[in-house]
Amino acid sequence: MSEAAPQDGHAFPLRVYYEDTDAGGIVYYANYLRFAERARTEMLRGLGVESSDLMADDGVALAVRHCAADYMRPARLDDALTIETRVTGVGGATLELEQTVRRGDEDLVRLDLKLGCMGLDGRPKRLPQHLRDLLSEFQDG
Amino acid sequence: MSEAAPQDGHAFPLRVYYEDTDAGGIVYYANYLRFAERARTEMLRGLGVESSDLMADDGVALAVRHCAADYMRPARLDDALTIETRVTGVGGATLELEQTVRRGDEDLVRLDLKLGCMGLDGRPKRLPQHLRDLLSEFQDG
Amino acid sequence: MSEAAPQDGHAFPLRVYYEDTDAGGIVYYANYLRFAERARTEMLRGLGVESSDLMADDGVALAVRHCAADYMRPARLDDALTIETRVTGVGGATLELEQTVRRGDEDLVRLDLKLGCMGLDGRPKRLPQHLRDLLSEFQDG
Amino acid sequence: MSEAAPQDGHAFPLRVYYEDTDAGGIVYYANYLRFAERARTEMLRGLGVESSDLMADDGVALAVRHCAADYMRPARLDDALTIETRVTGVGGATLELEQTVRRGDEDLVRLDLKLGCMGLDGRPKRLPQHLRDLLSEFQDG
Repeated sequence: MSEAAPQDGHAFPLRVYYEDTDAGGIVYYANYLRFAERARTEMLRGLGVESSDLMADDGVALAVRHCAADYMRPARLDDALTIETRVTGVGGATLELEQTVRRGDEDLVRLDLKLGCMGLDGRPKRLPQHLRDLLSEFQDG
Repeated sequence: MSEAAPQDGHAFPLRVYYEDTDAGGIVYYANYLRFAERARTEMLRGLGVESSDLMADDGVALAVRHCAADYMRPARLDDALTIETRVTGVGGATLELEQTVRRGDEDLVRLDLKLGCMGLDGRPKRLPQHLRDLLSEFQDG
Repeated sequence: MSEAAPQDGHAFPLRVYYEDTDAGGIVYYANYLRFAERARTEMLRGLGVESSDLMADDGVALAVRHCAADYMRPARLDDALTIETRVTGVGGATLELEQTVRRGDEDLVRLDLKLGCMGLDGRPKRLPQHLRDLLSEFQDG
Repeated sequence: MSEAAPQDGHAFPLRVYYEDTDAGGIVYYANYLRFAERARTEMLRGLGVESSDLMADDGVALAVRHCAADYMRPARLDDALTIETRVTGVGGATLELEQTVRRGDEDLVRLDLKLGCMGLDGRPKRLPQHLRDLLSEFQDG
């Protein structure tokens, strides 16, 4: 997987399968959040950071604190989608991201997320410095 | 299932199973949206409206247009949760709801949703009058 | 929830929601395994055994080793289903179950499962005696 | 995606995300069936057949009639898996497949499936000839 330039964000391709759809014939609304988390995970993996290493080595995990989703157009079975992820803010123990689910040129769903870094006890914990450095480089503007 | 008084909203009980959790030991963030949709469906069923009848009889479905979730505390395996649903607005083709995921007295996740009524072609369509009437009675204030 | 007599197995009611269906208009085939696991969990809870206590107190979890599913008729949106669970065998570290997904009098899906008891290191471990005793009482014949 | 030679079956790569795991720290047992269906879909897509075209053009869908899964070793967060799919039988209205979930050289889960071709009314229907021809070429032995 190649990384797009930071100003364009990270692009993650995925395909819509039966499991993602519902009886309305479209992707079930909660499943875009699953797609978005796959894209965030691959953005981090592209930076050399694995979720399981964050847990094992740094004793932290990133948890979603806030998520707002605008559903503009539905995705359907067999659609080839792209998730674009942009880092919009890096705080001491938080991370802000914008993610857009696209089908070709069409924006289907737009998500704004705030993640918190937490220790294995579930309490807020400072983002590991190596992760802050990596994400800052990836940040907008 | 008994309905709570409208001013308190509709209460839907559910249990957390393995399928709902992730390797972090807590409920996966997208799954609260599944829980919330079950609660909305049961609120409507309590009013005598089945999703499958809406499709078959009125040719409409309710689709989520906007969803904002605040994750305050995590739910865990075997937790007994309650989803409280309150109707905060009924428009011509839209419906606004507040939903809160609770464990006993604790608020875990709060969701604000805007639903749109759409025809089977995916275009916005007026809420059927019988549904508007039912929901207005259920509305706050 | 009331327990059926052991010879009839344990009966667990559930409702089909949008999240369970797919673009074919029927319940997605993997989701019957989620339903079945909810039923097994409630059978154990009815016996006073919580999955999270098994992990915390006995240091064990039940993992599926083998699962065979026969899909006879599909379930659809809004269907009210019942999962009947019968214990067909209790070994030193294994448990055998038959589960049937029903809609009224119709059998929709039939599952045969073999579960293994494992320690937190993932290795096979003897079923806790209190669980063996409880399950033996619940067993057929 | 490149296709492996028919005698080795079709290989589909995938990654394990948080959504796939449960509080036991491993992939939830029903989710291997989701993985397997993705692999079957990509095998067909590699042959030029899209699920949505089967529905729209031929008025048929492939539904799982029987599925037996042997769970040998668990997959974990961030694992890179491969699903190998082999066609083991092509009948008038049925299709038999063997699928193996692998992590490197290790076999984790083995599935045996029987699919039935059905019309949009849910009744059995003959496999479209173009699909039979394609699959026969892909078949073992």
